[in-house]
Order: sequence, then structure tokens, then C-alpha cells
Amino acid sequence: MVVYSKKLTVNTKERIDFLRITDEVKKAVKESGVQDGIVLVNPMHITASIFINDNEKGLIEDFKIWFEKLAPKNFNSNHHKPGEDKGYSHLWRTILGREVVVSVQNFELELGPWEEIFYGEFDGKRNKKILIKVLGE
Amino acid sequence: MVVYSKKLTVNTKERIDFLRITDEVKKAVKESGVQDGIVLVNPMHITASIFINDNEKGLIEDFKIWFEKLAPKNFNSNHHKPGEDKGYSHLWRTILGREVVVSVQNFELELGPWEEIFYGEFDGKRNKKILIKVLGE
Amino acid sequence: MVVYSKKLTVNTKERIDFLRITDEVKKAVKESGVQDGIVLVNPMHITASIFINDNEKGLIEDFKIWFEKLAPKNFNSNHHKPGEDKGYSHLWRTILGREVVVSVQNFELELGPWEEIFYGEFDGKRNKKILIKVLGE
Repeated sequence: MVVYSKKLTVNTKERIDFLRITDEVKKAVKESGVQDGIVLVNPMHITASIFINDNEKGLIEDFKIWFEKLAPKNFNSNHHKPGEDKGYSHLWRTILGREVVVSVQNFELELGPWEEIFYGEFDGKRNKKILIKVLGE
Repeated sequence: MVVYSKKLTVNTKERIDFLRITDEVKKAVKESGVQDGIVLVNPMHITASIFINDNEKGLIEDFKIWFEKLAPKNFNSNHHKPGEDKGYSHLWRTILGREVVVSVQNFELELGPWEEIFYGEFDGKRNKKILIKVLGE
Repeated sequence: MVVYSKKLTVNTKERIDFLRITDEVKKAVKESGVQDGIVLVNPMHITASIFINDNEKGLIEDFKIWFEKLAPKNFNSNHHKPGEDKGYSHLWRTILGREVVVSVQNFELELGPWEEIFYGEFDGKRNKKILIKVLGE
């Protein structure tokens, strides 16, 4: 059995931003030497998401508008009472989810034809870590 | 360590449809010979979800109505600019999630008493693939 | 390879309630003897969620208000036709997700600085089970 861990550091230009990280995950899978197994990818932060969807900029725009509709940034958050200003970010991350688990097959990340891995940032402009963990044989 | 992979092909009658796939996942677990471990189940498409919930037709009806309320099919999607017509499907899949990871115990899928595995299709009537991956010993 | 399983039983005081279970998961990881791997945590029920977010009571209050806004308890659920009264609970669980998969590193649960594991209960006041499964070497 092989277990391989790697951490990426990201720092987005915008507070709310989306980064395609498929290539970084593919690289980690190669480095692991795992032939057949799975890979876990998660942010180490509670204001961010790892998710899989289409690599199309209109969809990314849709996400921003849709999250704002479901959980507006200016809502009257109880989380703001102790001085926080990012109540929305914890809800946006809830919609998109925390982590993904993906198959590794024949030493490669096994994605469907349109599946791409993204990092969704909802409170960026500072260093954040992404954990990649490959398990298999 | 044992790693076993299997793919299912589905083709739904309706564009939006839900298929119970618990038995297919149970079968794959049996085939794997894994005694103790986990199984990953995910669609290989970005307009579909694998999820676990109640096998009750009223709930399935609720899902359709509720998704339409949260992300209506006719919303003004930026994803439609390059000619797509399924912006909603990427958002519906986001709500339901992409994959599930379930325990395997004593050569069997280990679900709670009411847990059932479903494939949620939001742009069907064509062949789609589901990946099942069993890991353990 | 090591595979270790454990079940927790919880019984919440309120029908809708949130329990921090980070310490229980840390304990299970220690018990497993796994040095490097992953841990899966899921409820064995379809009216509950395991999720990771901030351990801040204002956020928990936000969740309750926000779920009620997205899927009100008194909505006209098709799931109520056969006599059920908890249609909302299946939708709330859908938003929060079913399970989490977390890294285990150096015999410890590997969480980011603010990540805490929670059990979200939407139909409590009765015994419910949480499954913890550690895999690795």
C-alpha cells in the first residue's frame, strides 16, 4: 500500500475567486507512484471548497451570482457578532462542498471527459493550503 | 490490499431522472472480494450526482420542485452564451453533490437502515457512466 | 494495511441540533493505530449530516435560519403524503452533505487550523449512529 501526501499553497487575487487545479492534482498523482487507488483533495480552510464541474467561465460567473442569491454577503449574520465579516463564506462553502475523492487508475487521475477540479475561494487574498492525499497500490 | 474498479452505463428515459443504484453497488462490492474497506461511487459527468437519501417517491418529487425553486431552468445563465442550454444542471448537481464514499464491512456494503444510493440525472436521455471503486483488504 | 471501524451513538436534546464531534473522531484515529491514511465519517441516517466548518455558535444559528429560508419546515412536501412529517430534513441534509473524508497523518487527524467536525441533526431526540472508518498503514 502506498500513501502519499502533498500540500499546495494558493493566494487568490480576488477575495472571491476560482482556480482550476486539475493539473496540480494530476502531478501529485504521478509523484505518488500509485497505480490504482483514490485521491482526496480538500482545502484546509473553512471559507473555501474543492469541487468538480465544467471549466467554462460562464458557469463560474453563474456560481458567483447564484451564491449571492442563496446567501447574500450583506445578510444579518449571527457569525458577525463576535466581529467576523464573512458569514456568507461559510454558507457558500457549504453549498459547494468541502472535498472531492477521485479514482486513480493506471498511474493517472481518472476523470470523466468534462470533469475538472477547482478550488473555490470565498475569503482570499492571503495564503491558503490545499491538501492532496493519494492512497492505493 | 485490494482495489477493484467497475463502470456502469445508464441512459435515463427523462432528461431529469433519478435511478436507485443500491443493488448495483452491492453487487460491485461482492465482486471486489473486499472484506473491510470503502467504496467510492461517482458519475463521470458534470450534469449528474450520486447521493444517498430515502427511497420514497414523494421525496424525489420534492427534489425536482426544490431544485427548480433554487435554480430555475430558465434563469439567465452566463453558461448559455457559448450555446449551452443546461446551466441549471451544473447548479443542481452542486446542491446534490458529486460522489459518495461508503463503508464496506464483512464483504457487504454497510448502509444505515434507510440509506439508499441514487443516481441523479439532470441532462439525460443519453449514455452516461458511473464509476465504482472499492478499496480495502 | 489497517482498516478500523467504530460507531458512535448520539441522542440530541433538540429535534434540530448540532454536535461537535472532532474529539471523538480524533480518539477513533488514535485507536486505529493508522499512521498515514484517511478517515471516513458519516451518519447512518438520512435526516442528518456530517460536515466540517467553524466552531462558532453564531454560524450554527445562521445555519438554522438559512436552511429554514431555503427549505421551510412547513413546505407542501410530497414526502408527507405517506404520513411523514420531515420532508425538510432530507433537503437540509442535502445542503450540508452526508459525509466527510479527512486525512490522517503521523497517527493524528489532519485538520486545518479552524476545521472542526460536526454532526448536524434534523430529526433527533432519539438514538442515531455515526460510522467512523479509518484506512491506511
